[in-house]
Amino acid sequence: MDVVTQNRCFDGVQMVCTHPSEVCGTDMTFAVYLPPQSGIGPVPVLWYLSGLTCTHENAMTKGGFQEHAAAHGLAVVFPDTSPRGDGVADDEAYDLGQGAGFYVNATRAPWATHYRMYDYVLTELRDLVMDQFPLADRHGITGHSMGGHGALTLALRNQDRFDSVSAFAPIANPTQSDWGRKQLSAYLGDDESAWACYDSSILLEEYGWKDAILIDQGAGDQFLDLLRPEALAGVLARRRQAGLVRMQPGYDHSYYFVASFAGEHVAWHADRLHRPQS
Amino acid sequence: MDVVTQNRCFDGVQMVCTHPSEVCGTDMTFAVYLPPQSGIGPVPVLWYLSGLTCTHENAMTKGGFQEHAAAHGLAVVFPDTSPRGDGVADDEAYDLGQGAGFYVNATRAPWATHYRMYDYVLTELRDLVMDQFPLADRHGITGHSMGGHGALTLALRNQDRFDSVSAFAPIANPTQSDWGRKQLSAYLGDDESAWACYDSSILLEEYGWKDAILIDQGAGDQFLDLLRPEALAGVLARRRQAGLVRMQPGYDHSYYFVASFAGEHVAWHADRLHRPQS
Repeated sequence: MDVVTQNRCFDGVQMVCTHPSEVCGTDMTFAVYLPPQSGIGPVPVLWYLSGLTCTHENAMTKGGFQEHAAAHGLAVVFPDTSPRGDGVADDEAYDLGQGAGFYVNATRAPWATHYRMYDYVLTELRDLVMDQFPLADRHGITGHSMGGHGALTLALRNQDRFDSVSAFAPIANPTQSDWGRKQLSAYLGDDESAWACYDSSILLEEYGWKDAILIDQGAGDQFLDLLRPEALAGVLARRRQAGLVRMQPGYDHSYYFVASFAGEHVAWHADRLHRPQS
Repeated sequence: MDVVTQNRCFDGVQMVCTHPSEVCGTDMTFAVYLPPQSGIGPVPVLWYLSGLTCTHENAMTKGGFQEHAAAHGLAVVFPDTSPRGDGVADDEAYDLGQGAGFYVNATRAPWATHYRMYDYVLTELRDLVMDQFPLADRHGITGHSMGGHGALTLALRNQDRFDSVSAFAPIANPTQSDWGRKQLSAYLGDDESAWACYDSSILLEEYGWKDAILIDQGAGDQFLDLLRPEALAGVLARRRQAGLVRMQPGYDHSYYFVASFAGEHVAWHADRLHRPQS
């Protein structure tokens, strides 16, 4: 692993690192914020998964998470949204290929070679950061848009590996949305039965979640039709699942929305990640 | 004035606007954050001046000021750092011409035609925002690097127009620095006596400031030799000027430094701007 940049930030340190990824078969970049408390002992980890077109950098510079993470003693890991590079398959569209990994393990050519963001985040990057930084083995996960989809998917399918989950304007029902059907078809093929394990509305219906879930959604979001929060909210209510789906009046899909509620999400995860483990 | 973008942010609104500037003789872009309190009545204004190479956008997206401004009921105005456009003189160097207006009124060709950022910020943009937005006539000013120089220069020379001043890693003594001598020579000519009114160390020596001044400076700043905080700190001490020059260990010149102390600067200004006027 190489440290590319390192900046002092809220008495902790914001780092950008690269490493060769076996899972993705290419070099990968990620960012990690270590709060001041990590100088004293291991701190829990909040995973933040970004949306379409983003890299590790967008939320790192525009999300405002560091101030809250420093206040609450959490590390934050910002993975990239796909493998990248000349040898990595891509598409001209902004919503397929590089920058649009959708947090799946692709099974179809040309994507299957490198596009394995599900395994990458769940195991390889997790093992790497646990090995390299002073982190406690307590993990929360959140994300925005495609990253909200990734966060919910990863948590709901791996309840032993995550202690808390939330999302900002997640793609909540990708099997029924143009943000989903196109990508799942490309990455996984046309058999829709293979898609269900990447749809958080279906997963929540099937598995529930062991604790409360926090979802924030801008009521003025320009992509509401693609995000389909009504699907997830419906499951939450039907299943009597503990949690909050908050429709936030006036907010759109931008990082101004994410930043506005970043503090509450970090506090939500901190409450759970600092709890004594049962 | 045209509103280019408008995003809900911490229950207020972040706007980007353009307007034809008489002072600069070209269209100018600026950003303004209006906190939720501006929906009830006029709010005081914090001016944030940016550094070399920046536009109105950098601090707006990376500084994290909105959260604190919302908490304290301040508007924040982010002007651009120079006139821009095809008809506006420029230089290939990053530190002269577009993006590097230095908050002066240029008097030499080819700069004198458009480069009048001192007057632009002090009068034209001020009149415009006071006219267009629900703002109280109470003004604080801060800035980063070249913008810290601008903030100090504007406040020290116009003590009736500003109620509070602070700076992040300001170019504190430009008449003695390569960040200053080059630009002042280009914009104002070789007669150094014309430069003194744009050097905050000289201005503080001459005028003092009616209240306390807050300066934050990263002790690990890669540009310390160019910023010359020792000049301003020396004047502050010699003159028994109320204020703090805080050398912050480990911090560099980046927006991670600015964001880390943005909350304390906003609180500093809010304390003063919300005081009953004497």
